[in-house]
Amino acid sequence: MNSGGLCCVKYGVTTDYVLGLEVVLADGRVLRTGRRTVKGVASYDLTRLFVGAEGTLGVITEATLALRPAPQRPVTLAASFATTAQTGQVVERVVTTGLVPSLLEVMDRTCIRAVDDLLKADLDRDAQALLVAQSDAGGAAADTEIALLTRICEEAGADFVHSTDDPAEGDLLLAARRMALPALERLGTTLLDDVAVPRSRIAAFIDGCDAVATEHDLLVGVVGHAGDGNMHPTVIFDPGDAGQRERAFAAFDAVLALGLSLGGTITGEHGVGLLKRNWLEREIGPVSLAVHRAIKDALDPAGLLNPGKVFRAATAGDLEAVAGLTAVR
Amino acid sequence: MNSGGLCCVKYGVTTDYVLGLEVVLADGRVLRTGRRTVKGVASYDLTRLFVGAEGTLGVITEATLALRPAPQRPVTLAASFATTAQTGQVVERVVTTGLVPSLLEVMDRTCIRAVDDLLKADLDRDAQALLVAQSDAGGAAADTEIALLTRICEEAGADFVHSTDDPAEGDLLLAARRMALPALERLGTTLLDDVAVPRSRIAAFIDGCDAVATEHDLLVGVVGHAGDGNMHPTVIFDPGDAGQRERAFAAFDAVLALGLSLGGTITGEHGVGLLKRNWLEREIGPVSLAVHRAIKDALDPAGLLNPGKVFRAATAGDLEAVAGLTAVR
Repeated sequence: MNSGGLCCVKYGVTTDYVLGLEVVLADGRVLRTGRRTVKGVASYDLTRLFVGAEGTLGVITEATLALRPAPQRPVTLAASFATTAQTGQVVERVVTTGLVPSLLEVMDRTCIRAVDDLLKADLDRDAQALLVAQSDAGGAAADTEIALLTRICEEAGADFVHSTDDPAEGDLLLAARRMALPALERLGTTLLDDVAVPRSRIAAFIDGCDAVATEHDLLVGVVGHAGDGNMHPTVIFDPGDAGQRERAFAAFDAVLALGLSLGGTITGEHGVGLLKRNWLEREIGPVSLAVHRAIKDALDPAGLLNPGKVFRAATAGDLEAVAGLTAVR
Repeated sequence: MNSGGLCCVKYGVTTDYVLGLEVVLADGRVLRTGRRTVKGVASYDLTRLFVGAEGTLGVITEATLALRPAPQRPVTLAASFATTAQTGQVVERVVTTGLVPSLLEVMDRTCIRAVDDLLKADLDRDAQALLVAQSDAGGAAADTEIALLTRICEEAGADFVHSTDDPAEGDLLLAARRMALPALERLGTTLLDDVAVPRSRIAAFIDGCDAVATEHDLLVGVVGHAGDGNMHPTVIFDPGDAGQRERAFAAFDAVLALGLSLGGTITGEHGVGLLKRNWLEREIGPVSLAVHRAIKDALDPAGLLNPGKVFRAATAGDLEAVAGLTAVR
């Protein structure tokens, strides 16, 4: 799936750490990809082809992963903002100044309030957005990074900025972010989306999700990896209410359309799977889809591998099935 | 080709900077790959598939490349060693201490003497190897990096270590490395190889190339990117001498076999092309070769794109043709 997480802004995604694979192909043969050298161009980049292919090209039975030195003890910062525009300005300035925090996360007001209800954490319930950041550069370097980030937040007009090098207090600040999805899940069944947008469009995307929520008369909470633009808008609905269920899927689609209209992608790290099969061609176009199908057919002519995922047109029944799975989870 | 160069040790290779491509496919359709977001998993990684495919899958007509901030003014170091083992020890310690110079190059004695003959640079003609390194971290960070590298060289038993933050003097030190291939080309026709080995095997590889030269009664000069293990052993011969020509190709093959025996690859950055078609399967194995052919056939069923390259078994005539091209160049 080539997934990521909180630290991609500094450390990249799964595929950046996969040095080689053992893959069982559709015909049962065993393929080995990768090499033991830093550089090498004898072969197509099959490792990168299989990572993120969602199991459609082979079954990965072994992976050789790169290691990094353990990170230094983090310094943590939290900042709240009265407008999403201020929040977006911080992210843009982080990018343009070349500052690379090890984590830069955002939550919108819906998430802030849901988390505050759950944790009684005395969060700023009137803020439009909360940023949580860390530097794991260590020692003076971390202090320098967090001081620069503090200044960027203050210059953008933050209502509140606080940082700490105490690990326990840092964990508390980060807990607000980590509890965002569990807090939203207390409010109903969730449809978790995974749109990534250019980092200059984060404020526009959060505002757009707010408009989608209003238009569809539902809660949509946005939590995400601001540092790399990968947002997780989460539609909340009552699955026992047929009208809400229908509006929830319409809102989910509206969020995808919004992401594409801002130059984004329908999936930053969760993949196409069942739920976004109808959207793949809309993002990558008919020629790219044909190339995908040609590669898929070449390596899996009988369609044995993860059948029905990624490529086949989704039906209303598929969407209901996925919503069921989401609810069960 | 997914090539590299002197600064890959810090900055990676071509494909690490390719954000998207426009590719004309074999049937004339135009494919666009890539996206405008940092993360994204809607699609196979077609960008990485086409970069390094040596033109066998499509004709790249446009590439969108990532930029980096301009590097700081470099600090340059040169060090010479009485043994290749000492040189290898330096490279290993650089890797294990996490030091990342912006450049870490090596030349063997054959190259040192050829360059000294050309430049009259008063190089250490008795050294077995010369390392040239740079840090572009800037200011105190660069001084710290070069001080650490100096200590590593001294502890490994370097005969000579010198560093400078004067750009003109740094250029002079680097000129020895930059002139290695031109200096070798004065000695005869060259067959330039491109083996990459694990960074722990550099000394063994240089020693092995020395043995190949002795065995085949030819000069083989080794120059390369020590920091990433990508070596360019260069076989020198007189094309007018049939015996030398035959021994040159035998030596070229012996160098490839040596690289594979050390866990390396037949090509770090120059590609398979014509000259190494017979070697591709030996490195990647029959299953991987079959997967390559399946992808090639799926995207170029008529074999129109860069025909005969990478895949077809090479003949003696092909090798002569390549040697002719090399000589002309």
